[in-house]
Amino acid sequence: MKNILIIGCGLLGSSLLRVIKKKKISKQIFIYEKSKVNVLKIKKLKLPGIIINKLDQRISNVDLIIVCTPMSEYKNLILKINNFLSSKTIITDVGSSKSESLKIIKKFLRKDIFWTSGHPIAGSEVSGPEYGKSDLFENKWCVLIREKNTKKNHLSALSKFWKKIGSKVVLMNSEKHDKIFSMTSHLPHLIAYNLVKSAQDFEKKQNYDLIKYSAGGLRDFSRIAASNEIMWRDIFFNNNKNMSTAINLFIKNLNSFKKDINSKNNKSILKKLIQTKKVRSQIIRLKQDINKPDFGRS
Amino acid sequence: MKNILIIGCGLLGSSLLRVIKKKKISKQIFIYEKSKVNVLKIKKLKLPGIIINKLDQRISNVDLIIVCTPMSEYKNLILKINNFLSSKTIITDVGSSKSESLKIIKKFLRKDIFWTSGHPIAGSEVSGPEYGKSDLFENKWCVLIREKNTKKNHLSALSKFWKKIGSKVVLMNSEKHDKIFSMTSHLPHLIAYNLVKSAQDFEKKQNYDLIKYSAGGLRDFSRIAASNEIMWRDIFFNNNKNMSTAINLFIKNLNSFKKDINSKNNKSILKKLIQTKKVRSQIIRLKQDINKPDFGRS
Repeated sequence: MKNILIIGCGLLGSSLLRVIKKKKISKQIFIYEKSKVNVLKIKKLKLPGIIINKLDQRISNVDLIIVCTPMSEYKNLILKINNFLSSKTIITDVGSSKSESLKIIKKFLRKDIFWTSGHPIAGSEVSGPEYGKSDLFENKWCVLIREKNTKKNHLSALSKFWKKIGSKVVLMNSEKHDKIFSMTSHLPHLIAYNLVKSAQDFEKKQNYDLIKYSAGGLRDFSRIAASNEIMWRDIFFNNNKNMSTAINLFIKNLNSFKKDINSKNNKSILKKLIQTKKVRSQIIRLKQDINKPDFGRS
Repeated sequence: MKNILIIGCGLLGSSLLRVIKKKKISKQIFIYEKSKVNVLKIKKLKLPGIIINKLDQRISNVDLIIVCTPMSEYKNLILKINNFLSSKTIITDVGSSKSESLKIIKKFLRKDIFWTSGHPIAGSEVSGPEYGKSDLFENKWCVLIREKNTKKNHLSALSKFWKKIGSKVVLMNSEKHDKIFSMTSHLPHLIAYNLVKSAQDFEKKQNYDLIKYSAGGLRDFSRIAASNEIMWRDIFFNNNKNMSTAINLFIKNLNSFKKDINSKNNKSILKKLIQTKKVRSQIIRLKQDINKPDFGRS
């Protein structure tokens, strides 16, 4: 590729920057970043790429645009770049939920332009260009969305791009994507936020100093609950229907656990606890986590 | 001390064994372990200590007995050792919930014998003597239970013992202990089990292969949900009243999140997400977790 434009240079954008440079995937890299704080960080870190401070006709010659902003910015961004886009340019994003953002894209993007949606499974609780790293996507899944109107040659070029980055590519439609990730990512995040919120409420009510005893389990949830609030608000709002279904299933199961506990139903609770245990070894076998007790923390 | 008897030699018991030997806290260490599999492991690992295969009059000369079995075994254990115990012996345990097990102890332990209850905050998802390590308790909290009938000189000797082990000791009554840990440990474990259970139910119903996409959050919960089922059944059953209260608060808050999501209440959800985020830095400041993104996993 001759040139790539990264719009939004936080954790994911700056990691892309680093790996594109490292693996020489593109001759030139342009960066557009709205936040002045982040621009200063990018300069201080001497990240590769040319910072542009305006999205104008220069972007019409770009081979690939990767949108790495929060999803709530897509609409304004599209309205800003619509007139400068070329139908040859491959446009993609890294947003964590798909159906709703595809509706926005369909509604506002110029009809002769193609947007091929993507989602690398590589976030973490930190955000900002200072946390990016060139191996963030290495051996991670990258979901690319294939729908009826997906431009085939763009999809295949993007697939090659992510494989070069080091990711494993999988294709699915936005509906399936949003259902799967409502359960493996979006609900876990909401649950983590909710557990920490409940601990805070309890601490306040009981006037106990309890956070200092959080090594027994709470600390794990606090990591996830430290994730970027704008990004997660957008995900929860965009995937709200699947979230509702997931929350209802979760509450139903939690009430069943509560019943087991209060009636001391040995058989029923052991069945659940033994069955859930199996998932851990499955996750390790699938190389979705490291095989060290306590994540190797000491 | 001249001699210490460890009853139950899994993760915690075998870690105590290792650190007692390493720091030369006692001249002799005796081990009583019911499981033949664990006894074989202890021999193969060449762990320090003399394995005894019967609890009889030999235990009356022991300075300190540390019970490291699941809490559901306390009753039978007490009935087995009652006649051989001396009132000079300090007896303690490492069980994770306190009020219910203290009732069992009060009911069945000989009236002239003292049991000083303890809870080192040092578990993990693995169990068995092969996972023990001499620094498991280093810089971790150890809660010692102080109630009206607690034998003061035993409590003070135990406090010294745990400090020598490397732990930070804190005293509280069993009621406060069970409330605090219902929120920082017991509820997080139940929530983790419940999330994994919900993901399994969802996978079955939707016929989606979703565990392979668990790196987005689910994998963290699967670690906690891989914990020993007997130990956790005992904790949930023993602390059932506080668990119920904690579950109710959790469901109330989750329904409030659901309402925010479905009504797209920006102000309300951002307030929650920003507030919960603060706990992470508090936890790191209190040295309850390591200060590395993603727990330092790569």
